[in-house]
Amino acid sequence: MAKQQVVTPSILPGFLELLPQEQMVFNEMLETIKKTYETYGFIPLDTPMIEKSEVLLAKSGGETAKQVYRFNKGENDLSLRFDLTVPLARYVSQHFGELTFPFKRYHIGKVFRGEKPQKGRFREFYQCDIDIIGFESLSVINDAEILSVIYSTFKALGFSDFTIRLNNRKILNGFFESLEVADKAEVLRTIDKIEKIGRAAVADELKALGLSEGAAGRVLDFVGIKGSCSDVIKKLRGLSVNNEMFTEGIDELELVINYIDAFKVPSGNYTVDLTIARGLDYYTGTIYETILNQYPSIGSVCSGGRYDNLAQNYTTKKLPGVGISIGLSRLFYQLREAGVLGESKKATPSQILVIPMKETMAQSLELATKIRACGIAAEIYFNEGKIGKKFAYADKLGIPYAVVVGEDEVNSGKYKLKAMATGEQQELDIDRIIQELKAR
Amino acid sequence: MAKQQVVTPSILPGFLELLPQEQMVFNEMLETIKKTYETYGFIPLDTPMIEKSEVLLAKSGGETAKQVYRFNKGENDLSLRFDLTVPLARYVSQHFGELTFPFKRYHIGKVFRGEKPQKGRFREFYQCDIDIIGFESLSVINDAEILSVIYSTFKALGFSDFTIRLNNRKILNGFFESLEVADKAEVLRTIDKIEKIGRAAVADELKALGLSEGAAGRVLDFVGIKGSCSDVIKKLRGLSVNNEMFTEGIDELELVINYIDAFKVPSGNYTVDLTIARGLDYYTGTIYETILNQYPSIGSVCSGGRYDNLAQNYTTKKLPGVGISIGLSRLFYQLREAGVLGESKKATPSQILVIPMKETMAQSLELATKIRACGIAAEIYFNEGKIGKKFAYADKLGIPYAVVVGEDEVNSGKYKLKAMATGEQQELDIDRIIQELKAR
Repeated sequence: MAKQQVVTPSILPGFLELLPQEQMVFNEMLETIKKTYETYGFIPLDTPMIEKSEVLLAKSGGETAKQVYRFNKGENDLSLRFDLTVPLARYVSQHFGELTFPFKRYHIGKVFRGEKPQKGRFREFYQCDIDIIGFESLSVINDAEILSVIYSTFKALGFSDFTIRLNNRKILNGFFESLEVADKAEVLRTIDKIEKIGRAAVADELKALGLSEGAAGRVLDFVGIKGSCSDVIKKLRGLSVNNEMFTEGIDELELVINYIDAFKVPSGNYTVDLTIARGLDYYTGTIYETILNQYPSIGSVCSGGRYDNLAQNYTTKKLPGVGISIGLSRLFYQLREAGVLGESKKATPSQILVIPMKETMAQSLELATKIRACGIAAEIYFNEGKIGKKFAYADKLGIPYAVVVGEDEVNSGKYKLKAMATGEQQELDIDRIIQELKAR
Repeated sequence: MAKQQVVTPSILPGFLELLPQEQMVFNEMLETIKKTYETYGFIPLDTPMIEKSEVLLAKSGGETAKQVYRFNKGENDLSLRFDLTVPLARYVSQHFGELTFPFKRYHIGKVFRGEKPQKGRFREFYQCDIDIIGFESLSVINDAEILSVIYSTFKALGFSDFTIRLNNRKILNGFFESLEVADKAEVLRTIDKIEKIGRAAVADELKALGLSEGAAGRVLDFVGIKGSCSDVIKKLRGLSVNNEMFTEGIDELELVINYIDAFKVPSGNYTVDLTIARGLDYYTGTIYETILNQYPSIGSVCSGGRYDNLAQNYTTKKLPGVGISIGLSRLFYQLREAGVLGESKKATPSQILVIPMKETMAQSLELATKIRACGIAAEIYFNEGKIGKKFAYADKLGIPYAVVVGEDEVNSGKYKLKAMATGEQQELDIDRIIQELKAR
């Protein structure tokens, strides 16, 4: 036989692959997000990862287009999806007649971007999106509900010290309109940098954009407005800006804030922050960012907002919406780097390891089958060997309980249930073992 | 403003995309499979969908290579995974030192094959795989457990009339060795067709492969052995074939059969079928196929088997394993075509629609928040309009309950819970509403 040819097993840079104990933690986070989204009545959706390039890239240009994995197969020009929003727009337009509006969907899935690999940035990563899409109109109360979803999700993920930053693009846009700012988008992008580069540098950049000294000062005063939500609203109204869009934005913001209470979101978990603008041009109303206060360097862990028209590339129907996205792969990676996730030892769903002796194999299988029939994950150790090795297997995988099935146990119907963490043993019959495992 | 340019929204042929009510059914099936796999202690795994072509295609040639989505990005030669087995082999080899053996993993995810699109064949589809990988050796009792997983999975999916067909490649190979068949693989492939083309045609093909009249006859007699599992074993031993591999195969098959009972798999749900061979060359022992008896034309809905060496392309370590795969997209599609799935009307996870009046908005949000806090999916209808339209929304989505929150209700604390299917109304306080929803 020829010498065996072996290819070194490896994956590409910029791709995330987890060991079992990490994967268990990741999946638990994913499951928590999914459950929370469902509790709010969002419908699960799944779309192809490969789409027609002409459809998927109908709008995108610039950076996005460069990052897309695009290729040919036969005569088809194909692209891997780079987000879940464009597929949603395509889906809603394509299946419009078969959907019920408002259409509330969640989508948890991988997206692909051929970015330069860097710490915490992945080329293949999970996004967890929700969007509420209206037909022609969509009540602003939905914007309050979305904030409540953010709160419930991060609470369910085990966080308590986080802040949802809230703003409204109409306030920003209206204010700039009143100042007769020419390039609002540039000014928004500049303001977005205030935390990174500071007030003075922002003032300089604003002046470079053609704003007068006075206008730049008013912009900085405006974004400097702080205080409780009602304070901010009051101060905004006090500016007496004579602009319809500005006033509409304040009204919307006030409405959102008024309803947050009823959703039982504690006032410590949200704030109005006039400096957030979300770079993307398609947000037109409420915008959200979410900061873990103990890990501000991670940046926003959940962002989104309100847009006037989801799918103008695919339909002439007006479909306003509001949504958010959690970049789970990145969040997981950052939390792991920050040491927040702790050291999980659990590397299997198994709650118990059933250890047969040679002569009790059939009875061991029956025991495991009974436990599994109650929905409890049970594993049987089939390899022969010393008992210590078998317990070591349970330890390595973090299986909390083990039970050795000897002939005495089979005859008496009483089994020694060993708690692996403490070494403690309890002599129990099968029903009590199941009770004990269920109680965990 | 220029006239809006619209791209017709569509997806590629050969890709599956579902409407909400179908997606709900699909996800339920997926969830059932996942839960069952976990009950047996399989560990969830997730690997990149894009891998290095040199690694992913280390072995594949022929048909597979042609079907792979392969492309370049920058300097990288990339491929989309075409199954979950090659990534498993790569994963186990790459992370060998950090894994515990036997390594039991499940993997549910999409794979990609640029096949000619045809009915029920997809280019992007879900596979649901489990494998148990040993280091150097792996007890044959695992093969019985895998059969038990197949049984539990299809039972949990709601099937009862299905048959798991069991065979062992060593019996086949040993038997052919004893007949001094030159091209065993070809003979196996021919036998695999016996159901499709019949005994006579198979006999002809066998003779065309160089088998004597007598040898072809003995092959047909051999694959014609029928009866209960123990009958088949007896008849096989009765053939007095003097071949070590043959005897080993019978011993393994007998051992698997002996333990199936202890796993509480009813004897009506499995059978030994000497005609199944599984085309793939890498199976070396036990093999499985699963037939839904009322829909035999669907073919095997769950197949797999034992292999001597998982990862010879990536490591010199010997890693025997046993596993199965369910092609869920195809199974779902076929069941839908066969009308088995029925007409599900449920197009949302929501259990209840909360309908606010204008003046009770805050109280309605509080009500929904309380229900959600109990883990029950609740939706609030924010759009204004006639009450009939609001109930129609619940009906269209298949939401089972609705509750209108009027001022009287808020004042009395008693709400009319309407069962949408019957129109029946119950006047209940909030705690009783939650009880009622939980009881469902």
